[in-house]
Amino acid sequence: MAVLTRLTALVDRISPPEPVYAHCDLPCGVYDPAQARVEAESVRAIQEKYQASDDDVFKQRAVQIKEERADLVKHHLWVLWTDYFKPPHLEQYPQLHQLFWDATKAAGATKSSTDPASGQKLLDLVAEIDTIFWATKKA
Amino acid sequence: MAVLTRLTALVDRISPPEPVYAHCDLPCGVYDPAQARVEAESVRAIQEKYQASDDDVFKQRAVQIKEERADLVKHHLWVLWTDYFKPPHLEQYPQLHQLFWDATKAAGATKSSTDPASGQKLLDLVAEIDTIFWATKKA
Amino acid sequence: MAVLTRLTALVDRISPPEPVYAHCDLPCGVYDPAQARVEAESVRAIQEKYQASDDDVFKQRAVQIKEERADLVKHHLWVLWTDYFKPPHLEQYPQLHQLFWDATKAAGATKSSTDPASGQKLLDLVAEIDTIFWATKKA
Amino acid sequence: MAVLTRLTALVDRISPPEPVYAHCDLPCGVYDPAQARVEAESVRAIQEKYQASDDDVFKQRAVQIKEERADLVKHHLWVLWTDYFKPPHLEQYPQLHQLFWDATKAAGATKSSTDPASGQKLLDLVAEIDTIFWATKKA
Amino acid sequence: MAVLTRLTALVDRISPPEPVYAHCDLPCGVYDPAQARVEAESVRAIQEKYQASDDDVFKQRAVQIKEERADLVKHHLWVLWTDYFKPPHLEQYPQLHQLFWDATKAAGATKSSTDPASGQKLLDLVAEIDTIFWATKKA
Amino acid sequence: MAVLTRLTALVDRISPPEPVYAHCDLPCGVYDPAQARVEAESVRAIQEKYQASDDDVFKQRAVQIKEERADLVKHHLWVLWTDYFKPPHLEQYPQLHQLFWDATKAAGATKSSTDPASGQKLLDLVAEIDTIFWATKKA
Repeated sequence: MAVLTRLTALVDRISPPEPVYAHCDLPCGVYDPAQARVEAESVRAIQEKYQASDDDVFKQRAVQIKEERADLVKHHLWVLWTDYFKPPHLEQYPQLHQLFWDATKAAGATKSSTDPASGQKLLDLVAEIDTIFWATKKA
Repeated sequence: MAVLTRLTALVDRISPPEPVYAHCDLPCGVYDPAQARVEAESVRAIQEKYQASDDDVFKQRAVQIKEERADLVKHHLWVLWTDYFKPPHLEQYPQLHQLFWDATKAAGATKSSTDPASGQKLLDLVAEIDTIFWATKKA
Repeated sequence: MAVLTRLTALVDRISPPEPVYAHCDLPCGVYDPAQARVEAESVRAIQEKYQASDDDVFKQRAVQIKEERADLVKHHLWVLWTDYFKPPHLEQYPQLHQLFWDATKAAGATKSSTDPASGQKLLDLVAEIDTIFWATKKA
Repeated sequence: MAVLTRLTALVDRISPPEPVYAHCDLPCGVYDPAQARVEAESVRAIQEKYQASDDDVFKQRAVQIKEERADLVKHHLWVLWTDYFKPPHLEQYPQLHQLFWDATKAAGATKSSTDPASGQKLLDLVAEIDTIFWATKKA
Repeated sequence: MAVLTRLTALVDRISPPEPVYAHCDLPCGVYDPAQARVEAESVRAIQEKYQASDDDVFKQRAVQIKEERADLVKHHLWVLWTDYFKPPHLEQYPQLHQLFWDATKAAGATKSSTDPASGQKLLDLVAEIDTIFWATKKA
Repeated sequence: MAVLTRLTALVDRISPPEPVYAHCDLPCGVYDPAQARVEAESVRAIQEKYQASDDDVFKQRAVQIKEERADLVKHHLWVLWTDYFKPPHLEQYPQLHQLFWDATKAAGATKSSTDPASGQKLLDLVAEIDTIFWATKKA
């Protein structure tokens, strides 16, 4: 990220940077798929640690904390879907509804799974949303 | 971010990427100062919108929602301070305790202030923490 | 809703009533749009009381509590959309995605509005979802 | 409850139904024992699923989620007891205090039990409260 | 409190100290009316500061934060009533139900009031509960 | 506590009592390390009950509820550190930062431990903070 910071600085000299937040009609107006991504990374990391552990209390806590983190992913994605995206975005990206449905269902599926593959599938869907999100910010 | 993604890809070919999360002794282990930053950006954006508005209900909601967002900044910073940073980090960055105290106090101060300058001050302190955080990840 | 109750009564005389919950693949499996409806009724009631009051503290509290209630409506609707509804339901009711998007956006819109008409619009959309929900339970 | 619904239907034919919410001196004023009932149904459903499962992770999650749901039952009942019911109700239904005490204790008891009978006992007490609630709305 | 600590030490030499928590049939078993009292003190302090201020933003935040604190009082009292007190306590203190009803209603009443007298009334009722609580611990 | 109440009454006749809350620049201004202590006592009590039990569901719930209680300890300590203590306190007690870091880390450590010794260590650190807190109130 320190590297990214320096690269960003380089890019900033060439083209004006995109603002890091979008103003909507609510008081806040700051959105960033990073919020969903960080929690989804947490889900996958917990699944990996669960697999690597043979401590029963640790494994119980992993299942328990994963439940909360997966819930936060769902929440952050729902907020993006309902609050950030507007009808013109949907016209340009008609897959938005289905993509968010799939992603929030994938987040729900990580609750009952201790397989990091389910966490990775969630991360992939969050990355798809992230790509569209930043494309709409540039438009 | 799409630009960053491409630049990251370029950098990855030159040097191995930093992992995006740190493994600690808890089940999760994913930390990212972006969580505090996003909420702090929200605080400053709300202060700007408060100043630009003359709608009483809107202004009330701005004050109210800012309170929650500033609280989230405090929470994310406290987690970083207590859970991510370890004694060796403190040896290398002896200013850590004071920096987090100042930053969480600055977050508290944005609750009673509608001046975007207080939000900016908070963002500056979060940025200082962010710089140290990523430096420790590289070490 | 009083009308719905009477219609339910009529249906009950013809066929035995559906059980009030559906078992899904999660541990819980109980869904009921009544949860979203109760909170939406609360939103509209608060808006009506806001209009009828000239007590500044009361009006502030109305705006504040409405914010929380509208958030609960969004939450209950998101849960129905992501967790209850399955692909076969979507095939039969292709309007589901758009309907939930509209309803959750309508819930968000009641936060900045003190007009009971916005609460009523939300209740109408929740009623549409309720109708589809119970139709899928009978199928 | 299906029985109650049918009884309600019978009553509806004789007299016009009461509106589904009561206006109190708070900003909200909407109460409905359905909120407690839905969560209590969830508790019993989780207990049934726990009994039917032999998947350790599923059973852990069942215990964990049941804890939250039982807590919500307690919360919704406490709100009804303190906020909806008024001294005149207590005069007419002197058993109210004891009934709510028993019901919230029964909700607490479902936390440590995986026996659906404890969930059913809770539902029965919620149904008793529901009957009194709707009787007071008609009065 | 430092004074109290020294006095406690003195008393301890004369009679064995009461344990600071009660074991119940739940996993926790620690109860202390101090939790309700601290929040009730917060409610009264906020009302006093509200009266002393002429800063609109401050006064809005006072109303808003008082709402949360009063809610915490209600929650802590409900937990004591349902979880700590047992049937034998009720036999000895038949006023318990009514006392908790009055106290939680008084907590609710502080939400709409900015008069410190309502906060004081709440504190008095919490003190009555506190007296009974510690008497039952000695029994 | 009834004893303490009587002793307090005695002391009050000799010297004016310390105010039970401190006024800060926030609307509330009431602080009491008792909040952290009660939750820390709960953590240790849960660990003791965990050790004494051979009921799998009970033990799971103990781990789960301990997680929440330990989190509350961290929260209450963070609030004291950031909100109550001011720069002059730090001058007088230069160990404050490190003490709070150690205490919140000790609270985190009780999450993964079922050994009451870890709960006791946490209580000892909370007691150290409590001593400093009340000393600053007298100053």
